[in-house]
Amino acid sequence: MSKQQFPVADTGEPYVTQGMGEPLTAKQAVDLARAFKAIGDPVRLRLLSLIASHVDGEACVCDVAGSFELAGPTISHHLKVLRKADLIEGERRGTWIYYRVRPEALRLLAESLLLLAESQRSAVGVPA
Amino acid sequence: MSKQQFPVADTGEPYVTQGMGEPLTAKQAVDLARAFKAIGDPVRLRLLSLIASHVDGEACVCDVAGSFELAGPTISHHLKVLRKADLIEGERRGTWIYYRVRPEALRLLAESLLLLAESQRSAVGVPA
Repeated sequence: MSKQQFPVADTGEPYVTQGMGEPLTAKQAVDLARAFKAIGDPVRLRLLSLIASHVDGEACVCDVAGSFELAGPTISHHLKVLRKADLIEGERRGTWIYYRVRPEALRLLAESLLLLAESQRSAVGVPA
Repeated sequence: MSKQQFPVADTGEPYVTQGMGEPLTAKQAVDLARAFKAIGDPVRLRLLSLIASHVDGEACVCDVAGSFELAGPTISHHLKVLRKADLIEGERRGTWIYYRVRPEALRLLAESLLLLAESQRSAVGVPA
């Protein structure tokens, strides 16, 4: 199986997810864990989901704030974590920043989980 | 799109991931976030990866401890977090507990990310 690129927000460097049967290196695990940690929070998961399903696939704090009993700055903090993890991107238009989910980043995270699942399958000798 | 079942370790109850275009509820986000938080740690990700790629797809603490500069009890703690999140299962044989990755749990997490990615795609009006 070919190796796959995954963009890392902090450094701009891609990392490579392993093929089946090869354990993750410590560095790869750190990069992947950062992204999973970003979505390991209910508010951030709901933010991703609200943005993704909003009209035109984009939303500002003004659009999503009503869904939470949280102050605006708290929501902005969570959006910043998602943005730093490269899971959303933002574009300022007038007063507001409009955020979009980066579906390719979610797909690459999904792929890393599927590769892990396949590693297990491969290790127990199920033919590819 | 049909709704999908995801087993939740703590309660034994399944939760339902949303179809495209429907934001996650608060309860669903809490359950999903718990699983992502469990893998949002480099040691736990490497443990998953080491177990999955170990001979026969199973490993005990004795098999993986050499890959970390961590004490046995610390590794056992991380394994417990993964087990509580239903991402691995263990079977005691003699002195050791042998762990296996639950590929179906990883696949369901992957699916939830793909649904989020598709929600975004759907919201911007890309035909299904």
